[in-house]
Order: sequence, then structure tokens, then C-alpha cells
Amino acid sequence: MGLGEFSRIERFFRPLATGFPGALGLYDDAALIAPIDGFETVITVDALVEGVHVPVMPPPDLFAHKSIRANLSDLAAKGAVPLVYFLTLALPSRCDDDWVAAFAAALAKDQAQYGIHLAGGDSVSTKGPAVVSITALGIVPSGKMIRRDGAKVGDTIYVTGWIGDGLLGLERIKNQYRLQTIGSDNFLPEERYWYPRPRFDWGQSLRGTAHAAADISDGLVADLEKICLASDVGARIYANQVPLSRFGSDWVAQDGNRINQLITAGDDYELVITGPESLKQHVLTGGKGVLVPIGEIIAKNPTPFVSVIDAEDREIVFDTKGWAHYQED
Amino acid sequence: MGLGEFSRIERFFRPLATGFPGALGLYDDAALIAPIDGFETVITVDALVEGVHVPVMPPPDLFAHKSIRANLSDLAAKGAVPLVYFLTLALPSRCDDDWVAAFAAALAKDQAQYGIHLAGGDSVSTKGPAVVSITALGIVPSGKMIRRDGAKVGDTIYVTGWIGDGLLGLERIKNQYRLQTIGSDNFLPEERYWYPRPRFDWGQSLRGTAHAAADISDGLVADLEKICLASDVGARIYANQVPLSRFGSDWVAQDGNRINQLITAGDDYELVITGPESLKQHVLTGGKGVLVPIGEIIAKNPTPFVSVIDAEDREIVFDTKGWAHYQED
Repeated sequence: MGLGEFSRIERFFRPLATGFPGALGLYDDAALIAPIDGFETVITVDALVEGVHVPVMPPPDLFAHKSIRANLSDLAAKGAVPLVYFLTLALPSRCDDDWVAAFAAALAKDQAQYGIHLAGGDSVSTKGPAVVSITALGIVPSGKMIRRDGAKVGDTIYVTGWIGDGLLGLERIKNQYRLQTIGSDNFLPEERYWYPRPRFDWGQSLRGTAHAAADISDGLVADLEKICLASDVGARIYANQVPLSRFGSDWVAQDGNRINQLITAGDDYELVITGPESLKQHVLTGGKGVLVPIGEIIAKNPTPFVSVIDAEDREIVFDTKGWAHYQED
Repeated sequence: MGLGEFSRIERFFRPLATGFPGALGLYDDAALIAPIDGFETVITVDALVEGVHVPVMPPPDLFAHKSIRANLSDLAAKGAVPLVYFLTLALPSRCDDDWVAAFAAALAKDQAQYGIHLAGGDSVSTKGPAVVSITALGIVPSGKMIRRDGAKVGDTIYVTGWIGDGLLGLERIKNQYRLQTIGSDNFLPEERYWYPRPRFDWGQSLRGTAHAAADISDGLVADLEKICLASDVGARIYANQVPLSRFGSDWVAQDGNRINQLITAGDDYELVITGPESLKQHVLTGGKGVLVPIGEIIAKNPTPFVSVIDAEDREIVFDTKGWAHYQED
């Protein structure tokens, strides 16, 4: 017998809530968020299921990092500054106290890195796979959230970094590549898969200039398509302009059609952004990174919303534009 | 093959979000909550797992009602007015489109009844039991949330209605009692189990006068104990002052010890409140209901926090004071 729910909260989760007074130390049924004059609250929800969104029996620390960062990535895309999060854990009995301790320790690291605090949640048992659901709150200056529905015909479409490494990372994980360089500047695909780096740099710096943005969690094409749907426009992107890491480039060099997989896979956690052509000149503070233009917003096609053009100027036809979960029902 | 996640959102959930502009029609990655001058936001999270918190294969409409109302009950206990909620559904493939349609239709009914709107969420597949996690937001005038940590030595402890019907309801459901009188004034235990009635009446009317409150979801003793823990006090309650329905009274009449089960079972969704003795005179608008005093807040005992006194003035010893889930791991 391990600790009960109450003792687990006491030992592992209460310490994660000390930095935010409105969490009331997790002693209450609810948390309290005071309004901040001139700011709005941005709220996003993402759930990860073992065996669906991540491999079965994921290491608890990696599962925690990916869960919280996937949510933070949504806040980043909106131009928000992270504030607090609420955590629902549905865990099978094999997730013992050590497992929960490791999970919580990983959350603590990311809280410190991203300036976010636990403010509440629920912890329940399940006979099924582990489910982690997070509701994350951030703040933006009022009226400044970068929405999905602001794309305009004539906008340039940009991405903030390499596309497809999420897929390659998962492949490498399946092939037992070891994680060797966590936290290094050498951002390996498997690291990207488990440790997304939410693009707060870009999101916050483009508030007021970008017209629309989304993070790439379901795949470049699928997430861009959601921007098009919300904005009632179409998009055309050029496959050979999509930036690839050296892993992606090597992989596509073996078979040119593989680009289709990279742009329809998920877990990249870069941003896809639409806005004026001048954003091309926008660089991050310290000159770290530029936006890569990959296409343009066009008038709505009946369907598809997103046309992808290959190197021979032909439109690519896809079987699926969305993300096939790790393992679908 | 049923509808995909996207089409399910389109068909079943988008209509639930039309009443709240900040939901952005569920077209965005996030919802936007504007601050309301003079009000704070109260946030609570509750998750229900099939086979743990509710019987396996629950009817989708009942599962929906219980899920949303369990969360609303927490807002009610805090004196909050409901605003929006975020829904995470992890569903096995047997929960087909008809199941989701019925689930969403039940949510729509409760949205209308309680003036709350869907503002976002996530829908994922699982190989395990269905998990419903809800994050609910309400508002209270700043500084007026009824917290758990405000109980003071000398406070009277009150409950807002019958205790133990949640347990009896579950027993009757296991014995195949039919739900015949949903929505009637005749509030049967099985109805109470599936259709908790969040006590917004009491919560909102006691803002500023009650010292502490919690809803009774884990059991009267357990939930009162959490108030004691948060407030650093003890409590003494008198078992024979705890109000019972005629079902509860009949059941206890057969065996006096059964009172122990009723006050340690969960799913009642009445409130336990501490405050001055004068609250006894407080009646709801229209004279509907009074608070029932059941004991008093005392100085902290080392342990237990809550002493329960029987009709012969002896302290009752419990095996468990908390709620045994429907089926524990």
C-alpha cells in the first residue's frame, strides 16, 4: 500500500503550490485568481493518454515534462505569459509513490523554468492507462492575444523552427535511442518529442504584429488548417520551404515523399504564424532565430483549406492531414 | 467508424460554447476571460472515472449530469456564481457518436439550468475506462469567497440538508431501482446520486456570514476534517443531530450503527458550513430550508480532527472517515 490520495497531495503536490497565494495551499476546494487590471486570462486544456499520445509506461519525469510543456506551448502561441495550472491525474495502481514523486519533481523543474505554479487539481485512480489532463492559465494585455481567427488574405505564413522532428523523435524512441543530451543546445528529435520548448520567445514578441498563430501539436498542415477554418481563408504552402533539422533533411534525402509525413505529423511545438511580409525581418532578442516564410494566406478554397505545393509546383494529395495518434482506437 | 474528434467537437460541443464570446467558438487553442472589476475568479477541478466514481458503463446523460454538477457543487460551496467550464473527455471507442451526443445534450440542459457555458477542453481516446475531467470557473465579489480555512473555535457547524442519501442512492442503483422522478420535488436517493443539486442558494446567501464551507462529496466527516485541517481547528459533531431523509431514517432504524456509514459516505453534495450561532435563524429566500446545526468547532485535537459523538455521548471510532470509492484499486 502506498500513500493515499491525501498524503500524496500533501507530500508531492502541496510544495508545487507554495508560490501562488491564490492556490490557498491546495487546502481548499478551489483556487482564487484576482483580476489584473489591463490583462485578460488565457485558458487552455490539453490531455495526454498513455498509449495514445505517448508510448505505454512512459518514464514519469518525461510524461510530466511533455504534459506541462504541451499546455505551455498553447499559451506561448497566444502570446501569453504563464500564470498557474490545474492538474488532473488518473493513475493506475502501478503508478506508485515513487512514480508520483518523480512526476512531481519534473513538474517542479518546469515550474521554475517557466514561472508557473500549481493551483489545484484532482487525483483519481483508474483501471486503465494513465491520463494527465492540464488546464493552464496565462495572462495577456487586454485585446492582445494572438488568435487563430486573424489570418488575412495576403498574409505570409511562417514557422518558428524545424518541422517533423516530433515524428522523428518518436521513431528514434521506439528504436531505443537513448536520451543523452537533455537540456543541451543540440536539440535532438527525441528530446524535442519529450521536452517541447514552448516558443514564449516568439509568441510574446509577436503580440500586436502577428495576425494569427497556433502551436504545431497535431501537425503543420492540420494546425494551419485550423487557422484557416477559424479565419475563413485558405492557405498555400511550399513543401521545400519548410525548414528541416539535419535529421529531417537526412531522412527526406532518402525518399522525397517523406516530407509529407513530416508536415502532417505532430509534436513539433513550433509555432505557425501568419502576418505581414515584414515579419521576415523580425528577429528574436539577441538575434536568436528568424521566422521562416513557407507560404501565403489565400482566399478560401472550398476544400482543402491548405494546399501544399511540391518542388515541381504540383499540389500534394494527402491521405491524412491530421495527426495519427501514437496508437489509435 | 464514427465522427472524428474534429467533427464531434463541431457537431456536439461547439453549440455548447455559443453563449460565451471568450470561448471563441472553440476555434482557438485557448479561451479568453476578461477581468470583471470587483470580482475574483474561483477555479475548481473534479474528475470522475467510470468504475471508480460511478458504476461501469454509466448512461451518458447521467454521467454528464453528475460530472458537471459535482464541479458546480464546489463553486456553490465557495459562494461563487458559475461562469464557464472546460471539459476533458478521455473515452474508449465504445463511447460512440450517439453516446457523445447524449452526453452533450445533458450538458446543454445543465448549462441552461445553471447559466454556465463550455469554453474549451480536450477530447482524447483511451483504451481504459471513460474519464471526465472538468475545470469550472465562477466569480465572487473580491474577498468574499467562502474558504475552507476560516473556521473559528466556537463556530457552530451546520449542514444544508440530508446526509447519506448519496450512499443509499448508489445502493439502490446497484439494486436496479429505476429512476422515475427526475426533476421532481421528490428527491430520491438515486436521483441525488446522479443529479446532485449544487447548493448555490446557500453558498451565495451565506457569503460574508459563513466562516468556512465545503461541499460534501467525500463524506460529511472527511469534508469537515478538511475544513479543520485548513483552519487548524478541531470539530465535534453529534451523530443524532445529522439530518436524514426518510430513506436514511428507515435504513438507520434497522441498525443504529449504520449512521456511521451515512456520515462517511460521499456524493451528498450538501454543504457543511461553520459560522456564528445566529446562522441558525438564516433562512433561504421564500423560506425554503434552514441550516441544521450538528456540532461545534473546538480547539484542535492532536488527532482526530473530527470527533463524532453518538446518542449515548460516546465518541464513535471509525475504520475510515473518507469516502471509499465505488471501486478502489
